Amino acid sequence: MNRTFDKLKPYLDKGMALTTALTLLEWDMETLAPEESDEYTSKVIGILSDEYFKNYMNGDVKRLLSRLTEDKEQDKLTAAEKAIIKQLNKLYNELEPIPSGEYREFSELKAKASGIWAKAKADKKYEEFAPILQEIIDYRRRFAGYRSKGKEHIYNIMLEDFEPGFRMEELDSFFDQIKTELVPLVEKTARNKDRIDKTYNHQEFDIEKQKKFCTWIAGYVGFDYNRGVIAQSAHPFTTNLHNHDVRITDHYYENNLESGIFSMIHESGHAMYEMGIEDELTQTLVGTGTSMGMHESQSRFFENMIGRSKEFWVPIYPKLQETFPEQLSHISMEQFVSGINKSAPGTIRTEADELTYPLHILIRYEIEKMIFEDGVSAEELPKIWNEKYKEYLGVEPKDDGEGVLQDVHWSGGDFGYFPSYALGSAISAQIYYHMKAVMPLEQYLEEGNLTPVREYLRDKIHKYGMTKDTNELLRGMMNEEFNPEYYIRYLKEKYDM
Amino acid sequence: MNRTFDKLKPYLDKGMALTTALTLLEWDMETLAPEESDEYTSKVIGILSDEYFKNYMNGDVKRLLSRLTEDKEQDKLTAAEKAIIKQLNKLYNELEPIPSGEYREFSELKAKASGIWAKAKADKKYEEFAPILQEIIDYRRRFAGYRSKGKEHIYNIMLEDFEPGFRMEELDSFFDQIKTELVPLVEKTARNKDRIDKTYNHQEFDIEKQKKFCTWIAGYVGFDYNRGVIAQSAHPFTTNLHNHDVRITDHYYENNLESGIFSMIHESGHAMYEMGIEDELTQTLVGTGTSMGMHESQSRFFENMIGRSKEFWVPIYPKLQETFPEQLSHISMEQFVSGINKSAPGTIRTEADELTYPLHILIRYEIEKMIFEDGVSAEELPKIWNEKYKEYLGVEPKDDGEGVLQDVHWSGGDFGYFPSYALGSAISAQIYYHMKAVMPLEQYLEEGNLTPVREYLRDKIHKYGMTKDTNELLRGMMNEEFNPEYYIRYLKEKYDM
Repeated sequence: MNRTFDKLKPYLDKGMALTTALTLLEWDMETLAPEESDEYTSKVIGILSDEYFKNYMNGDVKRLLSRLTEDKEQDKLTAAEKAIIKQLNKLYNELEPIPSGEYREFSELKAKASGIWAKAKADKKYEEFAPILQEIIDYRRRFAGYRSKGKEHIYNIMLEDFEPGFRMEELDSFFDQIKTELVPLVEKTARNKDRIDKTYNHQEFDIEKQKKFCTWIAGYVGFDYNRGVIAQSAHPFTTNLHNHDVRITDHYYENNLESGIFSMIHESGHAMYEMGIEDELTQTLVGTGTSMGMHESQSRFFENMIGRSKEFWVPIYPKLQETFPEQLSHISMEQFVSGINKSAPGTIRTEADELTYPLHILIRYEIEKMIFEDGVSAEELPKIWNEKYKEYLGVEPKDDGEGVLQDVHWSGGDFGYFPSYALGSAISAQIYYHMKAVMPLEQYLEEGNLTPVREYLRDKIHKYGMTKDTNELLRGMMNEEFNPEYYIRYLKEKYDM
Repeated sequence: MNRTFDKLKPYLDKGMALTTALTLLEWDMETLAPEESDEYTSKVIGILSDEYFKNYMNGDVKRLLSRLTEDKEQDKLTAAEKAIIKQLNKLYNELEPIPSGEYREFSELKAKASGIWAKAKADKKYEEFAPILQEIIDYRRRFAGYRSKGKEHIYNIMLEDFEPGFRMEELDSFFDQIKTELVPLVEKTARNKDRIDKTYNHQEFDIEKQKKFCTWIAGYVGFDYNRGVIAQSAHPFTTNLHNHDVRITDHYYENNLESGIFSMIHESGHAMYEMGIEDELTQTLVGTGTSMGMHESQSRFFENMIGRSKEFWVPIYPKLQETFPEQLSHISMEQFVSGINKSAPGTIRTEADELTYPLHILIRYEIEKMIFEDGVSAEELPKIWNEKYKEYLGVEPKDDGEGVLQDVHWSGGDFGYFPSYALGSAISAQIYYHMKAVMPLEQYLEEGNLTPVREYLRDKIHKYGMTKDTNELLRGMMNEEFNPEYYIRYLKEKYDM
């Protein structure tokens, strides 16, 4: 047992307790809290965030951390402890340069912005949101500036927070490949989109029945209700207090059956990652998924490779038909499976099919670069947004609600986050080819037996939390690092006909 | 502006932020958190409780507090600030004698006990709960001992926490009056109980419909959905993050329509108190109801004096009939009102009618005195419980689930709390006679106009938070302090026929 590490332990525990409380406060604001609660609750969030900041950013922790980073102390640490020290060093690099007062102000600002964004989106009025978005951009720029000290691109600093090892250089090459290979394929597919009729998906589907089916399907793919709960929110998301309390939300639309189902499978994929983390790691700095991209690979794998396969629906399509006999009894499983795999360009990222999805991300990546590298202002975003949608997807949002206001991320200051979605999709394709090689995946799905799939992922990825990074996990699984070619191959095999 | 008070402000703010987080964690554990989350979440609660403790119990705060208690500093404080200092001194007396480690252990123990109690109650197995209950009793005895230093009765220390000014001396006299006047009246009423037929209340009532009606009735009596939310839990309760986020729960039974309705009106009464507190007081140490008894007076006033009156149902009974036509269309309003006012001894406190209710409290009061003054152990409680129910109410619980395990309070260490329920009922009767004298109460109810009632209470009671105590509020309202005779008079007028 390392005595120096023991001295750090109370700080780590307090940091995790504050993180847990903040996570719950944020979950609650998104799912349940009454409309007028924001003002006071935001202050509480500001104060606790400040406490979190001061818990780590102080002379005591700094001294202990620097001792624990030395070789002779490292030798006495377990693998998990080493990973914690590495993560704390990362957090130090991130937070230490920020003055404590500014960190708190920013936390309060973000908590408030979430409500303003939601209202602006509902009102379809970007001008209600633009001023606070500009404030958020300015904070993020200033915070990244404190760290870069002029030596590094501002946007690279942000990217590193979500996906270590993936900076503009790597991402430019990744997105170039996507642009070159996929934009023409999207155009071609869009021309043929009327071949598949999916009007069946836009009948009236009772919300309570959808909820019941989706609650069931989450359990079917492996969401463990003893260790998790499901609620509703404007925008589906996953969060967790620890590995025994993982929470997802869904959103149901009366005239869109698919949306609730695939959001639920997607979020269940995220949830299973968090539920699969080892007990010894949960409630530590490395007790969560290793990166946003790896997280997204799990949700995308379940949503797309599993959930949109014909084999997945063989045992369960009859149940869906029974739930909605009037709407689906005359729709064959083949037609349903064609429908859920139909590609057609649209304006909404979260409703996008697999093929057009990465172009939605490409647009956000390019815009974020423009904001932080070229100084584009919040005010200019709707125009740029709409132009890029026209250029890459050939569609135009009918208002800002379905345009630049559609995603929650920027209101939370999460710039640099979006690329992870495309990376995650790419990783999910890479994992898919590997899984097909090592197990009879289709057969398992037809048998309604998802346990071996989940257990394999748990064993190769989930359980490690952040003790291994994305490339280490992929190497351990398949002897190969991240390789986007699988993704292009997957999309071409599926959509280029 | 008082400079010394300004120095205390950050501690007060942090204390409130931690309280708010802890409140939300507890709310969440009762309403939503998954079954297996308890272990890790209890640890988080333990750590944050310890932080709360250390935030106040330190040399800095102690020095500031002692300076702010001096006359020359007091002169520079506003009325609200003075009340905060008074409250902080009270908190100091309560917490300072407790070693920090023990406070944390006790917080964790309580968080854990709540799950064990719920399971034991469901299993109807007291022996599952007895060991942890004994631990809780021992902690409470030790904590009270630290404060009393042998100079004061242990149980008086506990009583003072909930109802300042009401110790065993005052309560013995109050409960003696209840025993003398009410036990014979209960016996007499019980003999005649079959005169009123309320089998209608025990038909099958669809839970979703009950929920819809109860949600509506909460708004009807004045629950403000912009500043509050409603959920379900095993045991109805009210809590609040601040005056713009007040939360209540209800519990519905398929074969008991009344239960959900009157619990909802009751909790709405609590909620309106919290919603009515001034903005300048919320999120301070005096930003909540002034005492448990005063709080209970508001919930009881709405539940009983308002909610069980004929006039209240005049405008809304048709709506209840429309909700349950099959069950209620042949039940006249007069029959329904007789039913909701029927007195019959039972084993469950929360289901008790107005007349028998104080005897349930009397039993708990006597048992708590036995535990802390006579050293009775947890193990002995079921036997004593059942004997007292037989003696005072003439009934016998068929198992411990509906006996000694029925209430959550002891699992949270809340000994000394129960008497407030009876005091609250007594205060509600006192307020009732006053309200009838100052406004046309019946007429307002018949008109479905509860606004003047709510506004009067807000103006005379709610808005002050803890800046005035129970007797000050009563004096300000009606020129008289607490007087239990109104309560006896009220019950006799209503039930002695």
